[in-house]
Amino acid sequence: MVIIVESGAEEQTIQNLIEKVSALGFTPHPIRGVEKTVIAVIGPKTQEKMELLEVMPGVEQIIPILKPYKLVGREVKSEPSEIPITGDLTIGGERIVMMAGPCAVEGYDQLIEIARYVRSAGGHVLRGGIFKPRTSPHSFQGLREEGIPMALAVKAETGLPFITEVVDVRDIELLHDVADIYQVGARNMQNFALLTELGKVDRPVMLKRGMSATVEDLLQAAEYVAVEGNDRVILCERGIRTFETSTRNTLDISAVVALKRFSHLPVVVDPSHASGHDWMVPALAKAAVAAGADGLLIETHTRPQEALVDGPQSLTPSAFSRLMKDLEAFCEAAGRTI
Amino acid sequence: MVIIVESGAEEQTIQNLIEKVSALGFTPHPIRGVEKTVIAVIGPKTQEKMELLEVMPGVEQIIPILKPYKLVGREVKSEPSEIPITGDLTIGGERIVMMAGPCAVEGYDQLIEIARYVRSAGGHVLRGGIFKPRTSPHSFQGLREEGIPMALAVKAETGLPFITEVVDVRDIELLHDVADIYQVGARNMQNFALLTELGKVDRPVMLKRGMSATVEDLLQAAEYVAVEGNDRVILCERGIRTFETSTRNTLDISAVVALKRFSHLPVVVDPSHASGHDWMVPALAKAAVAAGADGLLIETHTRPQEALVDGPQSLTPSAFSRLMKDLEAFCEAAGRTI
Amino acid sequence: MVIIVESGAEEQTIQNLIEKVSALGFTPHPIRGVEKTVIAVIGPKTQEKMELLEVMPGVEQIIPILKPYKLVGREVKSEPSEIPITGDLTIGGERIVMMAGPCAVEGYDQLIEIARYVRSAGGHVLRGGIFKPRTSPHSFQGLREEGIPMALAVKAETGLPFITEVVDVRDIELLHDVADIYQVGARNMQNFALLTELGKVDRPVMLKRGMSATVEDLLQAAEYVAVEGNDRVILCERGIRTFETSTRNTLDISAVVALKRFSHLPVVVDPSHASGHDWMVPALAKAAVAAGADGLLIETHTRPQEALVDGPQSLTPSAFSRLMKDLEAFCEAAGRTI
Amino acid sequence: MVIIVESGAEEQTIQNLIEKVSALGFTPHPIRGVEKTVIAVIGPKTQEKMELLEVMPGVEQIIPILKPYKLVGREVKSEPSEIPITGDLTIGGERIVMMAGPCAVEGYDQLIEIARYVRSAGGHVLRGGIFKPRTSPHSFQGLREEGIPMALAVKAETGLPFITEVVDVRDIELLHDVADIYQVGARNMQNFALLTELGKVDRPVMLKRGMSATVEDLLQAAEYVAVEGNDRVILCERGIRTFETSTRNTLDISAVVALKRFSHLPVVVDPSHASGHDWMVPALAKAAVAAGADGLLIETHTRPQEALVDGPQSLTPSAFSRLMKDLEAFCEAAGRTI
Repeated sequence: MVIIVESGAEEQTIQNLIEKVSALGFTPHPIRGVEKTVIAVIGPKTQEKMELLEVMPGVEQIIPILKPYKLVGREVKSEPSEIPITGDLTIGGERIVMMAGPCAVEGYDQLIEIARYVRSAGGHVLRGGIFKPRTSPHSFQGLREEGIPMALAVKAETGLPFITEVVDVRDIELLHDVADIYQVGARNMQNFALLTELGKVDRPVMLKRGMSATVEDLLQAAEYVAVEGNDRVILCERGIRTFETSTRNTLDISAVVALKRFSHLPVVVDPSHASGHDWMVPALAKAAVAAGADGLLIETHTRPQEALVDGPQSLTPSAFSRLMKDLEAFCEAAGRTI
Repeated sequence: MVIIVESGAEEQTIQNLIEKVSALGFTPHPIRGVEKTVIAVIGPKTQEKMELLEVMPGVEQIIPILKPYKLVGREVKSEPSEIPITGDLTIGGERIVMMAGPCAVEGYDQLIEIARYVRSAGGHVLRGGIFKPRTSPHSFQGLREEGIPMALAVKAETGLPFITEVVDVRDIELLHDVADIYQVGARNMQNFALLTELGKVDRPVMLKRGMSATVEDLLQAAEYVAVEGNDRVILCERGIRTFETSTRNTLDISAVVALKRFSHLPVVVDPSHASGHDWMVPALAKAAVAAGADGLLIETHTRPQEALVDGPQSLTPSAFSRLMKDLEAFCEAAGRTI
Repeated sequence: MVIIVESGAEEQTIQNLIEKVSALGFTPHPIRGVEKTVIAVIGPKTQEKMELLEVMPGVEQIIPILKPYKLVGREVKSEPSEIPITGDLTIGGERIVMMAGPCAVEGYDQLIEIARYVRSAGGHVLRGGIFKPRTSPHSFQGLREEGIPMALAVKAETGLPFITEVVDVRDIELLHDVADIYQVGARNMQNFALLTELGKVDRPVMLKRGMSATVEDLLQAAEYVAVEGNDRVILCERGIRTFETSTRNTLDISAVVALKRFSHLPVVVDPSHASGHDWMVPALAKAAVAAGADGLLIETHTRPQEALVDGPQSLTPSAFSRLMKDLEAFCEAAGRTI
Repeated sequence: MVIIVESGAEEQTIQNLIEKVSALGFTPHPIRGVEKTVIAVIGPKTQEKMELLEVMPGVEQIIPILKPYKLVGREVKSEPSEIPITGDLTIGGERIVMMAGPCAVEGYDQLIEIARYVRSAGGHVLRGGIFKPRTSPHSFQGLREEGIPMALAVKAETGLPFITEVVDVRDIELLHDVADIYQVGARNMQNFALLTELGKVDRPVMLKRGMSATVEDLLQAAEYVAVEGNDRVILCERGIRTFETSTRNTLDISAVVALKRFSHLPVVVDPSHASGHDWMVPALAKAAVAAGADGLLIETHTRPQEALVDGPQSLTPSAFSRLMKDLEAFCEAAGRTI
């Protein structure tokens, strides 16, 4: 860390700071300039003591130098991670993994119909919410327990792996058989109890970025899972909150580039939730592939007009098939397959 | 809701929309203008069907009219709620409730020392984190189970009620005796499983606004608690995420005014976490009282230089005592007592 | 517009509102529901009177229905505009227009060197700041008047059209010969005096989105130019201000999609200023093409280490050549040429 | 500045960096840690060369240490500036300066009526827009030249100093007699041509913070005025753009505290534009005084229902008089007079 000393601090104040750094077990490197004095403090574990120094008299600001995450960072593992999902399917390698399906599982008939065309259009993973976290308690919360056997049946019939959201630590067990990938939603990105438990499961975890989480916050959240031993973490960019009102959220396409540079973990983009508009999804999906994403999460519905949740952003079967086709050329341009 | 029809939509498209509204059980009121046609749909329960209409061909936009919360809104209960805490202490009435203490409980000696001067300076509630949700898994996470007997002892000795954060549904029971008020942190504001369980406890719940939550989101989160039967919900403004970097977060002082107008629940302001700077806390605390807050949450520490968490924003005992004194005139100006 | 009446408003209040609407010359359409009453008011010119109604007693909210721009919108002109620049070069058609060059013109030698490799790599337009708006008055402000003959000489020698920023209404004349496209910077997007004057020139105008401007604000700013008679307006997305700190600004890729849908004007993306990092530029450039942009604005410099302005985001000649090559496949995938 | 070297940089890369620093005329102070090496570079003028170093190979990040403004900062002048307006009236001293009036001058009768009750209620300065910058070219743009004689007549009759916005460098002269304070609006905060010219006038300048400007940006904009010789700059906080939709903008009350700490210039708060709601104005005005503001800018109108601009946020005469009375106790609590 670098300690910036207040302008006009007295010599004694500077000495006290230097001694405090030593007392914490680090080596202080003071550098005195005409207008400012700074004290550099280099070494492992320094970050954790930052708060003890920030309150010392004479400190104007302390600037961290080390990244606040380790296991998920490129400094620990420089090549990208290719994470196994089920069977031969992996994410983070050459293939762009297409995850598609309804926002919420509404019944067996709905799910099997969607699953069939997702598979026939070339999709790799079926998505579907069983427990739905909703902003209002008066909204539909998902089929809950009741939805599990439906999803199991559809998986069995289609062979598609299934990704579904877990919103409560107490449901991890319950969802174990049905969830080939556990999804952590944006609202729970910093539900550290949930992340810690998911660090102990034998399944990949897809972690959605919180609506106001920085790239660094997301990587620290991923670190919570990794530190418990589960290194199969997939990051997901799904839009951040800004002042713009023409989209539900603002898809932060640069975050894909930043995440791929700072971390070895695979990155998925969810253009459906980011934009909230079906007409925007194809363009954003192509942009995500161009920017280097490893997968896409697309909402689809056979009859968006009847969807119980998030209809406006769902693609119809024909729109999804067209997107799958249109993406081919972009994947090829990006040196990937689909 | 009001359905805005796309410019140039054909008559048949408009007819289909009108029929769909009828099919959902509502009465459509189409109004045709030169440039635009709109269809007004009035009535209870309409909001929940909005998504089914948003995806119909010809719909440009749908505008909700009813507020998405009920129990916590002024439309249901027009006078402000005065919520009992313990003994005679209430919040939401004339008294500005001062909650103060360390960010984290670090040990019995630390807590009792702080508690004594909080009480002697006139504070009403002791705060202290036992379970600490931290952005990084490598940071100090609180004393956890170990901290409970310390807090119990300090409560017994000082008689101060205690507010502490619950981060995991599985800890609600564990914290029951020590927590006179359960605090839900900003990161868990939309942890709906936690909110639902807290709706069943016999304790007040203080719900901190998420860093990117709107006033409306916060009220809907409060509704999750209220809908389960616990009407003792306290709202807390603690800063939102913006582009400004001179403060940790941006204290949204207008939110205090908006929350008091839209809801009957009491509102507390946390200037310590909002700003991240001890030198900013007194001015913001005064502003909060002037804006109509019902209470303040202030971080204090006897030796901020040694605090394990959030030292830079903690007031020293003398700074806290001075604040208590300085607030008197502002409370009086606001027609309140302290 | 739609007037939402406050819950519990008395009949007389509603009557007053209805009369006020009539008095303004419009036809009110009141619709009464169990919980809410709304009054729809349809017709041209209604928007301009909104403020007069917003303050009437009993009004909870007024919702506009018509878009606040006309000339630049798709409702007036449904096919995309292809705007002539110089010679055969147009923007908004099949070709992705590549504008590249240094942030600031620093001298003839620097500019000619960059211009030559921009041209040889296949770039279409040379960019270069002559007047530089800088956040601090202590920073380099551009060569100003002195830079004009240099740019004229480079244009003459290379045949490349030149785009440069105008920051003062008094400089429009001065820059007329050198600027084949006038650029309005993000900080001046709502400098309406400047926009109005640029509405009278016989040159295309590229309008950069303000750092906190919505898509709708940008289109209204474009309307200022168009309303004066200049219909050669090019929109430019260059990043918005958010809480994210890993990039200088957040490139709003969805804005490209939204602008193309709501407006017929061409859209350019500036990945250099948006991200502030040279290593991010290629990925964002590809994403922009995939999302539907009509052109790119790329900062390049032969010796970024010596650039007087914005070195960190400039591509070297070899990086720029590689980008031009890599973009080919993406342009083809998008059905465009480069 | 502090240069953070990339992890794993080779010795030669570090040497090159050190030599580059020397070549720029500064003294490099390299400090080598186990995980990271940093190079501290202390001294005046270092900031301006930052961009030249940021692009050197091996540089991960460069952190500035010196504040990017001088003349307006507390480091140059530690006591607050008390700025003369007209006659005995100053701002920045004990008195809270109340500036009130309509958003736009609509006619002599309107202005004189408002001016009279502003004066009788105890207001100090009359505000009124003559040139109005509006988001849409189709909105009312102010009376323009025609409004000047009206404002001159009202000033002569009431003796109130007048503050009005200047939106074009070419209007500075024209407004000289009528403007006792020139106002620069939020949209023009970084219109550097305008700021530079206002640095040469013999009038105070009130500079409104841009909607996405940081505290540091605002101070740098103020520096543009000060550097030309005009040290009578007044800063104005009027709300920033965030995701919150219950207010027009988010009043950044912490900015008042930060500006007063970092700068010696007086700070005014505009609760009317910040919130957009008349019912919010009184609470925010009190909060501003409590936070340390030196003045308030309040929109008032005798008949808000007929205001041509911004009616919804204007106080009626009786609401303004009540506010003036209610503020007394808060001013006294803050050790100020009104």
